[in-house]
Amino acid sequence: MKLLEDKIKTDGTVLGEDVLKVDNFLNHQVDPKLMDAMGAEFARLFADAGITKVLTVESSGIAPALMAALHLNVPMIFARKHKSLTLTDNLYTARVYSYTKQVNNDISIDKRFLNEDDTVLIIDDFLANGQAVQGLLEIAKVANVKVGGIGIVIEKSFQKGRKMIEDTGIRVESLARIAAFENGEVKFVSES
Amino acid sequence: MKLLEDKIKTDGTVLGEDVLKVDNFLNHQVDPKLMDAMGAEFARLFADAGITKVLTVESSGIAPALMAALHLNVPMIFARKHKSLTLTDNLYTARVYSYTKQVNNDISIDKRFLNEDDTVLIIDDFLANGQAVQGLLEIAKVANVKVGGIGIVIEKSFQKGRKMIEDTGIRVESLARIAAFENGEVKFVSES
Repeated sequence: MKLLEDKIKTDGTVLGEDVLKVDNFLNHQVDPKLMDAMGAEFARLFADAGITKVLTVESSGIAPALMAALHLNVPMIFARKHKSLTLTDNLYTARVYSYTKQVNNDISIDKRFLNEDDTVLIIDDFLANGQAVQGLLEIAKVANVKVGGIGIVIEKSFQKGRKMIEDTGIRVESLARIAAFENGEVKFVSES
Repeated sequence: MKLLEDKIKTDGTVLGEDVLKVDNFLNHQVDPKLMDAMGAEFARLFADAGITKVLTVESSGIAPALMAALHLNVPMIFARKHKSLTLTDNLYTARVYSYTKQVNNDISIDKRFLNEDDTVLIIDDFLANGQAVQGLLEIAKVANVKVGGIGIVIEKSFQKGRKMIEDTGIRVESLARIAAFENGEVKFVSES
């Protein structure tokens, strides 16, 4: 998505070897018009996937997921993150390891909100090692819902998440795919 | 706001003396069309307040704040919650007590995103004891930004947050104001 790639070029900051800071428009300060355009693009890409619900994980996934859900005209559900959860009967849960924070979190979704006839679209802001997506895939599996697709805002294609998703056979669409960071500059897959 | 009051009547659940559960359309599963309508209503109410940024706290505030910011055509910033924060020079922070969870959290906003010429609209999903709003007011004060208003989705008017805000002289608009829970039913201020 050209609009997003341009925004990353102008407003993103590369830190070290593999960190892209986009807290000025995506995950702390948020650009609502950009989120709206991204939501419309996700809805266009997955228009024929029969999506009945959009799933994400709090907090940074909420803005793009909400806009995708608005344009798809379906509810959005954000999984809650917990330090560690006392298992309760009414929740689907999965354990997610954060490489950034080097800590395990449990994520959960209330069982009332996923039904066997649902087809979900999983949305997240970043795809790096794919831990959050994997957690949502685990929940989808246990809940016995179909996963109609995975939509990512920014994918770091050189990390292992992309491969992990491709191996599942589920369709993944990333609005910006980063091939590499070169001398502090972002190099997109589309530019290679 | 009639649309929201109707939704609370049909889909909300009263638990005990003072808890309203709305996790099926507001703070776990989210109704995007309702969020959009609420965002439009906040934008209408604060159209003349000169708002340059919308502030909220993760996670439940993000959806209504994003939609308000979209309709006001300004950026949205969500404060990050932390268990307790090692103070860093680049963050504005405030301590927020959660009555529900009986725990202190620090909330923070990066200093880069608030400037002295900003006029902010504070949005939150619930107003009960007003702790989250108070935290954002503290940050606004230290950052030396003007608070143009406070927009609340659901206010429990019988708890102390409303009075606390009124005492500051800042304009507050709540889309649904709950006067009381009577026999497990919601009684709105508009019905009294």
